[in-house]
Amino acid sequence: MNYKFSEKVMSLKPSAIREILKMTADPNIISFAAGNPAPDAFPVEDIRRIAHDILDENPIAALQYSITEGYVPLRDAVKARLAAQGSFDADRDDVVITSGGQQASELSCKSFLNEGDTLIAESPSFVGCLNAFKSYNANLVGIEMDDEGIRMDLLEKAIKENPNVKLLYLIPNFQNPSGTCMSFERRKQVYELACREDIVIIEDNPYGELRFAGEDIPSIKSLDKDGRVIYAGSFSKVISPGMRVGFVSCAKEIISKIVVCKQVSDVHSNILAQMICHRILTETDFEAHLSHLRDIYRRKYSIMAKAIRENFPADVKVTEPQGGLFIWAELPERINMLDFCKKAVENGVAVVPGTAFMSRETDKTNSFRMNFSTPTDEQLVKGCEILGKLLK
Amino acid sequence: MNYKFSEKVMSLKPSAIREILKMTADPNIISFAAGNPAPDAFPVEDIRRIAHDILDENPIAALQYSITEGYVPLRDAVKARLAAQGSFDADRDDVVITSGGQQASELSCKSFLNEGDTLIAESPSFVGCLNAFKSYNANLVGIEMDDEGIRMDLLEKAIKENPNVKLLYLIPNFQNPSGTCMSFERRKQVYELACREDIVIIEDNPYGELRFAGEDIPSIKSLDKDGRVIYAGSFSKVISPGMRVGFVSCAKEIISKIVVCKQVSDVHSNILAQMICHRILTETDFEAHLSHLRDIYRRKYSIMAKAIRENFPADVKVTEPQGGLFIWAELPERINMLDFCKKAVENGVAVVPGTAFMSRETDKTNSFRMNFSTPTDEQLVKGCEILGKLLK
Repeated sequence: MNYKFSEKVMSLKPSAIREILKMTADPNIISFAAGNPAPDAFPVEDIRRIAHDILDENPIAALQYSITEGYVPLRDAVKARLAAQGSFDADRDDVVITSGGQQASELSCKSFLNEGDTLIAESPSFVGCLNAFKSYNANLVGIEMDDEGIRMDLLEKAIKENPNVKLLYLIPNFQNPSGTCMSFERRKQVYELACREDIVIIEDNPYGELRFAGEDIPSIKSLDKDGRVIYAGSFSKVISPGMRVGFVSCAKEIISKIVVCKQVSDVHSNILAQMICHRILTETDFEAHLSHLRDIYRRKYSIMAKAIRENFPADVKVTEPQGGLFIWAELPERINMLDFCKKAVENGVAVVPGTAFMSRETDKTNSFRMNFSTPTDEQLVKGCEILGKLLK
Repeated sequence: MNYKFSEKVMSLKPSAIREILKMTADPNIISFAAGNPAPDAFPVEDIRRIAHDILDENPIAALQYSITEGYVPLRDAVKARLAAQGSFDADRDDVVITSGGQQASELSCKSFLNEGDTLIAESPSFVGCLNAFKSYNANLVGIEMDDEGIRMDLLEKAIKENPNVKLLYLIPNFQNPSGTCMSFERRKQVYELACREDIVIIEDNPYGELRFAGEDIPSIKSLDKDGRVIYAGSFSKVISPGMRVGFVSCAKEIISKIVVCKQVSDVHSNILAQMICHRILTETDFEAHLSHLRDIYRRKYSIMAKAIRENFPADVKVTEPQGGLFIWAELPERINMLDFCKKAVENGVAVVPGTAFMSRETDKTNSFRMNFSTPTDEQLVKGCEILGKLLK
């Protein structure tokens, strides 16, 4: 048969990262390509005990249909946490539980964008959301970053040059893939520009709790006076990604649109997982758990950073993130990035070519992404040694 | 703020059923408005034991990121079941796990429809999917049914009169809300017409396993020679809707598009729930469980049917489904359906006005939907007595 697929879907390709991850099914390959939490980062004992208690005490509530907005006690716990961080305004905002953090961005996009409207993102950026935006035939524009985040001069120019710029998608904390943390000054500038140009900001913050160095910076949402920031969070990196539980906090008027979009997609998120997240937040020492995670990633990052310093040539520019899961490496002109990534996997180490994170296929990059959360300590060292040899 | 929402979302309204269900939070209201499984229909003991075993034996696999296509052992178990029922062709088809059955239809719609393309559905039909189709700005056309299913004469006419008819959405077994089961002859006619007109069929079958009278009828998918039928199924009605686990079986070429659409939506479905469904299918006596469910619903249906016969006036036309969860009642002209539904809830019984299931707001109906799976036996009788008094 000759299927007449939609234009939306014809432009979508399977994620390049997934193709690389398929190769890494080979146990002899050291994978720096994933973005998975470390296996010892899961609160397994708590989850096991809580799941058992819920299915013992309240099984029907955990198995029956539930409401689209999410499990009320979890929403309340999320609101309390976000309010303490300045990312929830009880008078103006509401919270909806989503099936992972990415669904929050996808449903926000669906709520705002007509075909051809413009969404601006950092470049490089999270490939999952970039593809979600493409799947609505958005005009997707990527803006380069400097050390403080998205470049204001290029952003202002792009807003002038593109039609109907409605959304600005940003990952201010430990951006995926660059590791960049947006400065407070830049956050204020971005918010003020969004106000002047009447643009809604999607602030995606899956890694904010994973700061292992430096000081927390207030969210863009905490600056939000007029309800133009959609704040997306996730339990994927701090409890479990397999559960698919995320959340979105924004003005009630936007929430009502996100809810009708979610209702026609997956109706509601898995309810047992929502109940487990609620009890982990409220009945366990969640701050101690986060502190444990930060210890794991601080250690893993320092192992990889040291191995990079000892093995990579000086002309490879490597970011020094203060949190999150990723290091971003820019190659000198003498090395072709795609050739290097190919050789790396042939030599037993998988990294993600930077092209995977570009808004448009024609956007150039000579960088690649390395993950330090998933490999073992030994793999971190050995993998960097192999990459170092290839780079020299 | 004056938000510039997308055209797609501006046309979507919160489900009328949800609004009614909010009223039914009042414990004094007898709700015939839901579509929930009976509380005693859940295999609670099995789920509790299996969840405990998985989190004991293999916690990291249950909590880590997984693949978009779904948990491979569950996909294999679903393929085996569907193959035995004629709804999976091992050479041509593949299976993807979805977050509930509705996501299968939503992603199929996204894969095929450009804005303005036509999707034809039975009228009345499942409001969740109708809204999903509307959310892609589809031209949604509803076709009346007779006792054997969608009317062929009206269907042929609609195909001629509407632009780019790409998809035909059908619920052949115990259709929601009408309870109609499409005859085998009609299934063949529909499939042949789809071949002649080059239309892809979405065959939604959430209720097929809940036949409590009569003989199973082969699926439309079992007639499919050229890979034009997308078969959607769900564990919501036979294991647990709160888990949000459904599946889709269709030609690999379509599957690849559904996978990229799912990848940008919720990445993958909750993995613990997928693992639980797999073990229920393969390690428990699932056929005995289904037989138990059919016993529950046969009994509940017969209680409601008897109470209707004893209480409703003869000029109210009521369907006699052989399975599923719903009865559809058509009022005589002397009674205004919307007024009746309003009076019913004021008198303590909630039903769903038929307008909720129409493709377009302007489509007329004088019917309403009653559910017999969720109320207690006593509520079934008392509710019908109250409705009967109002109808007289």
